[in-house]
Amino acid sequence: MQEVNSALPAGNLASLSTDDLQRFYAAANERYTAFKARGLKLDSTRGKPSADQLDLSNGLLAAVDEAEAKGGGDLRNYGGGVNGLPQARELFAPMLGAPAAQVVVAENSSLALMHDTIVYALLKGVPGSKAGWSTEPVTFLCPAPGYDRHFAICAQYGIKMIAVPLTGTGPDMDVVEKLVAEDASIKGMWCVPKYANPTGDIYSDEVVERLAKMKTAAGDFRIFWDNAYAVHHLTDKKHEIANILEACAAAGNADRAFVFASTSKITLAGAGLALFAASPANVAWMTRNMGFRSIGPDKINQLRHVKFLKDFAGLQALMEKHRALIVPKMNAVLDVLAHELNGRGVATWTNPDGGYFISFDVREGCAKRVVQLAEEAGVAMVPAGNTFPNGNDPKDTNIRIAPTFPALDGVKLAAEGIALATLVGVAENELKKRGLAA
Amino acid sequence: MQEVNSALPAGNLASLSTDDLQRFYAAANERYTAFKARGLKLDSTRGKPSADQLDLSNGLLAAVDEAEAKGGGDLRNYGGGVNGLPQARELFAPMLGAPAAQVVVAENSSLALMHDTIVYALLKGVPGSKAGWSTEPVTFLCPAPGYDRHFAICAQYGIKMIAVPLTGTGPDMDVVEKLVAEDASIKGMWCVPKYANPTGDIYSDEVVERLAKMKTAAGDFRIFWDNAYAVHHLTDKKHEIANILEACAAAGNADRAFVFASTSKITLAGAGLALFAASPANVAWMTRNMGFRSIGPDKINQLRHVKFLKDFAGLQALMEKHRALIVPKMNAVLDVLAHELNGRGVATWTNPDGGYFISFDVREGCAKRVVQLAEEAGVAMVPAGNTFPNGNDPKDTNIRIAPTFPALDGVKLAAEGIALATLVGVAENELKKRGLAA
Repeated sequence: MQEVNSALPAGNLASLSTDDLQRFYAAANERYTAFKARGLKLDSTRGKPSADQLDLSNGLLAAVDEAEAKGGGDLRNYGGGVNGLPQARELFAPMLGAPAAQVVVAENSSLALMHDTIVYALLKGVPGSKAGWSTEPVTFLCPAPGYDRHFAICAQYGIKMIAVPLTGTGPDMDVVEKLVAEDASIKGMWCVPKYANPTGDIYSDEVVERLAKMKTAAGDFRIFWDNAYAVHHLTDKKHEIANILEACAAAGNADRAFVFASTSKITLAGAGLALFAASPANVAWMTRNMGFRSIGPDKINQLRHVKFLKDFAGLQALMEKHRALIVPKMNAVLDVLAHELNGRGVATWTNPDGGYFISFDVREGCAKRVVQLAEEAGVAMVPAGNTFPNGNDPKDTNIRIAPTFPALDGVKLAAEGIALATLVGVAENELKKRGLAA
Repeated sequence: MQEVNSALPAGNLASLSTDDLQRFYAAANERYTAFKARGLKLDSTRGKPSADQLDLSNGLLAAVDEAEAKGGGDLRNYGGGVNGLPQARELFAPMLGAPAAQVVVAENSSLALMHDTIVYALLKGVPGSKAGWSTEPVTFLCPAPGYDRHFAICAQYGIKMIAVPLTGTGPDMDVVEKLVAEDASIKGMWCVPKYANPTGDIYSDEVVERLAKMKTAAGDFRIFWDNAYAVHHLTDKKHEIANILEACAAAGNADRAFVFASTSKITLAGAGLALFAASPANVAWMTRNMGFRSIGPDKINQLRHVKFLKDFAGLQALMEKHRALIVPKMNAVLDVLAHELNGRGVATWTNPDGGYFISFDVREGCAKRVVQLAEEAGVAMVPAGNTFPNGNDPKDTNIRIAPTFPALDGVKLAAEGIALATLVGVAENELKKRGLAA
């Protein structure tokens, strides 16, 4: 790695003399251009496991033999119910924080489960609804930055989204409480409560309790609790958050939360299992709706998971192996960013205790340009703005860095590309502010 | 098997003297009661493959090794698109009658694909729609008797259903053409075009052409072409029907048909693949909608199918093995029914060239009672009426016999139970007609 900082005028870009700023820009741009000329193809788009992470679960492929597939009511056939294999429901119950009877194990995509839950709500309503939600305007609260695919489902079905700021320990509850109390069109709220995508927020006990207790103008308000990173620790802290289902029940709002999770980032990302948990009334509603859609999920793949993971302790042991593969990549990105950007006043970023992302905030008004520069230099990223509802980051600040998929060398290079794009993009911005061309 | 016919007064029940009718009823009831006393548990509810049929595809379980799963873009990971594995789309293209580019391979349930297609249509509309279908009343034409789960989706989403008679070569097209021309609320029509569930209808070329050509008041009318039994022949005739996608395109209605199929009754009923084909515009619409729901299907299971079936010839060879297991069961039922019921004027039934069912029509007003009697005698059946929209068989006539799941001895016993229930139920009815108590 070249020593960009030592070769360039020191200090925060905003405090540099114009002369130094122009020298800084020229030097940064020279490095950026050299990086671009290497013609690299690096992928920092998505929270995808790497091939060596997937190798951890190769044992899944042959985990079920003929006798096992045939056993227990012949799992190869139709039947057995839409809520999934009993052994699988037992296995994942501790992860979801619900008794197995309140757990549904489905196909390979928790996004699909969330989508379908919204579809059922729109067309039929949820327990407590007077009609399908689609008969009136619907609004969702969206803690942001957040997961673009959550927001895309809302946009697709004409659901209005209100962005709510995150605090590091979850959404700003003063804002949330005020909105849900006043606006009966607010039927739902997205939450990624632990190691949030992309900010790494860990919802505090107070936030969980306020979410469970708050008064909502809509009698059929639902929290879509996407606990996608429930067991995806990156430190020894292994944060545990309050149990949303229990908190809602204790507050007299037992039906308030739909809990989702998946094994996509535990076993095989494309061939895992999607998981749902909720109150008995919500589970009965969900499974009744699912029963019109399908005779049941792929029970063989559920048995594969039971055989391979064995129990919750087995699952947690597997997550330790993932951690060992991910942490060096996270650290590599953090090292490059610190080395290249510290002291420049161009960006801040998170150092998450779990999950798949680093949330990277560049100077206001620069995110789109930085992503464009990174893309042009061969680092594929999701478009800036995607972490906000309707792709609209009002301050044009947030960029999601996904360091898990490439090999370690690629991760380091991608981080360097992002850092260089940031230096160039923000320096351009500072020059423009001073009325100078980049 | 006891010789019920030889032990009973000969002839059509309607033409028996009352004396003979009473003796007939007493004798039939005696045999029925003896059957019931055996306390059997027989399953004739659903078109489920038997364990020995499922054994044919045990090779699927270990069909994919680690290297293969990893190969071709790492099928274990996210990605690859919602339309499925290219090799799988190639494999199933001949079965669907569409080029691979117009084929989508999904999860384990074609019912789910049909459900989701209707959901997308209701909430977003289809190509050619001015709005989502749910903004106005929606009607579907339902050739009946038909598949209860099709009708259940309509009922669930408030879609009005109009039953259309079947002729043996498909729906009565005079009725269909008149209805769709006059009523713009008719947005859809269910068709099981070959070896129809339960009647065994094989749509004639004329019917396919008239469906493709007919003028519809709704500009966004769609045929839901559930070709569930496309390769499920039971005779050497191996009927081939006209290609609905080509017929629609030739008629200038390229976007009229959505084609569905699955491998549920080819490989493993609970762990197979669901298939979709349509015009390029419809496929683009479908995959765009699917893309909000999921990142993609389980590609490993798709590769399992490619490895196990190899090609369309391999699939057809497998179907011959299914045929060899199913035909003796079909014949056993037909033998029992002929033996017990011929000449009695109590029922008629089909002798299908393919598919999974015998459609069994008892005397008008007797189906519910016959199913009740069969159930009480230990033969589980789907409720009478289920083969009609809203569970309403206007003549109370149709019963679906599903002979594939039990072993051959069980199939024979179930058929005997159904035959005895029919004799008792219809004799009761005849006695009542004459003002006599059973």
